[in-house]
Amino acid sequence: MSDLPRFVSLREVGPREGFQFERGPIPTDRKVALVDALSETGLRYVQVTNFAHPRWIPQMADAEEVAARFERKPGVSYDAIYLNERGLERAVATGKFDLRGRLALTATDTFSKRNTNKTIAETIAALPQQIAAYERLDVPLEGVSLMAAFGCNYEGDVPLARVLELLAVGIDTLAEHGYAAQWLQIADSMGWANPLQIKRLVGSVRERWPERRLILHLHDTRGTGLANVFAALVMGVDTLDTAVGGLGGCPFAGHRDAAGNVCTEDIVFMCHEMGIETGVDLDALIAAARLAEEVVGHPLPGKVMKGGSLSRYRRPA
Amino acid sequence: MSDLPRFVSLREVGPREGFQFERGPIPTDRKVALVDALSETGLRYVQVTNFAHPRWIPQMADAEEVAARFERKPGVSYDAIYLNERGLERAVATGKFDLRGRLALTATDTFSKRNTNKTIAETIAALPQQIAAYERLDVPLEGVSLMAAFGCNYEGDVPLARVLELLAVGIDTLAEHGYAAQWLQIADSMGWANPLQIKRLVGSVRERWPERRLILHLHDTRGTGLANVFAALVMGVDTLDTAVGGLGGCPFAGHRDAAGNVCTEDIVFMCHEMGIETGVDLDALIAAARLAEEVVGHPLPGKVMKGGSLSRYRRPA
Repeated sequence: MSDLPRFVSLREVGPREGFQFERGPIPTDRKVALVDALSETGLRYVQVTNFAHPRWIPQMADAEEVAARFERKPGVSYDAIYLNERGLERAVATGKFDLRGRLALTATDTFSKRNTNKTIAETIAALPQQIAAYERLDVPLEGVSLMAAFGCNYEGDVPLARVLELLAVGIDTLAEHGYAAQWLQIADSMGWANPLQIKRLVGSVRERWPERRLILHLHDTRGTGLANVFAALVMGVDTLDTAVGGLGGCPFAGHRDAAGNVCTEDIVFMCHEMGIETGVDLDALIAAARLAEEVVGHPLPGKVMKGGSLSRYRRPA
Repeated sequence: MSDLPRFVSLREVGPREGFQFERGPIPTDRKVALVDALSETGLRYVQVTNFAHPRWIPQMADAEEVAARFERKPGVSYDAIYLNERGLERAVATGKFDLRGRLALTATDTFSKRNTNKTIAETIAALPQQIAAYERLDVPLEGVSLMAAFGCNYEGDVPLARVLELLAVGIDTLAEHGYAAQWLQIADSMGWANPLQIKRLVGSVRERWPERRLILHLHDTRGTGLANVFAALVMGVDTLDTAVGGLGGCPFAGHRDAAGNVCTEDIVFMCHEMGIETGVDLDALIAAARLAEEVVGHPLPGKVMKGGSLSRYRRPA
């Protein structure tokens, strides 16, 4: 049990992942209110919006306006997502983000096509252009991200060997251009992972690249989300993408009404109960989760915001 | 990872735990329909009802009628719950159950009082009467159960030493009367457990009583349910109380709108994905979970019934 990390960094992706999945329009000021509330919880990273073309994700048409209006809090890192060079340009142009470049790959052709309109081979062929864009826009290049790494609704199981191979392509391409991959972000984009698979994949990646930081991006589509998180923590993973209230889901994943990302406050609760620090004020985060529910106008799957934290039951020591 | 069990036995408690928590009346024939549907899923154990006094749990006033009307399927074990000798008598009188006696203890005085109207000391003093009742009614005495073993909404954290002490009282009392405790059922009645606590408690219990079967009864009040299940599986636990759809909750636990028991089909999904057998047909169980949602008339927290199993996405090998 000593292999559990002492501190876990949570990267809050709710405002981006959550809102892009919502059907009805959400007023810009409500999006901004949630980002500002999250800034006050002790979270050190908030992913604010997605600079996708409004034709693909209409909910994100106000990305520039959200960027202009949220308030940067010192000590918090603000990020945004983009699916192509034009999106990156737009994100940079706002001047509001602490952008860190990553080479983005996907583990299956079909999901890659749907998300980025390129096959895996086409994506690999275009990596030098990804690098050139970051250089041109003066965004530091730091990592490699891999989507659909645990399974795909279009292509089924994803072999571990392919995950390692694609991560190697990203790492090697960065190296050829003079960059070190400081972190590897591995995403279970469609909620396929189970805890044993997490252990195997994380074990293999850490064995091969022990010096890189691993970021897991997990969804709770089939209820195994926190079990997967626990399995990752046991393997020493200390950085996770999570979403307040369990907001999220992927508009291209081919299923509806399924649960979104693993829930930030449920993970904060679990970590704190196990003696792992997160730097987050759980009660403030629960308040933000309730605000997120109000903003989207329907119940969210997060549980600790309904069950309540345990602090009120504990007697003073 | 070789310490994961090859087969996990799931004890379905949804019809009992789930319905007792519901506010509105549920027609008897709908309860019977769910029990009968569960009998066809491959589950080998179904807890059908609770013979509590209707003054305490009005939802269970039709316990005799449910018992009379559900259909026993060969190979499935049917059980019922009772909070006192009168309840046990009523369960026995129906002739429909495979009752197995257990000495019931609770780890905190307040929760014990609320559930059974007795303090811990009063419960211990009355254990010989519990035994006499089972003997008089010819119900085999097999186990010890301990509620509120992981924490209590009224008294806070529960020391591990107290859990071990109370289990020892139950085991020793059975031994004094010539019975062996074949199993120990340990309940996180109010959803306090975290995976590390599960590992510690299960480890301590197994170290002290390696030959007894452990049954964990877990709630998912704060989202850690499946993480706790995974931690238990890693410790070799192979018997779990679970509820279809995540039905459940405890009427005496002092919180409302909180999630119920750990969800049967989500656990079946996680086990199968990890290569652990359960004997359960996941698709049939998902259909039963949808029926459970219809019966209670509101969404249930189970996730795999919304996200869907993965079988339809996998290509034939």
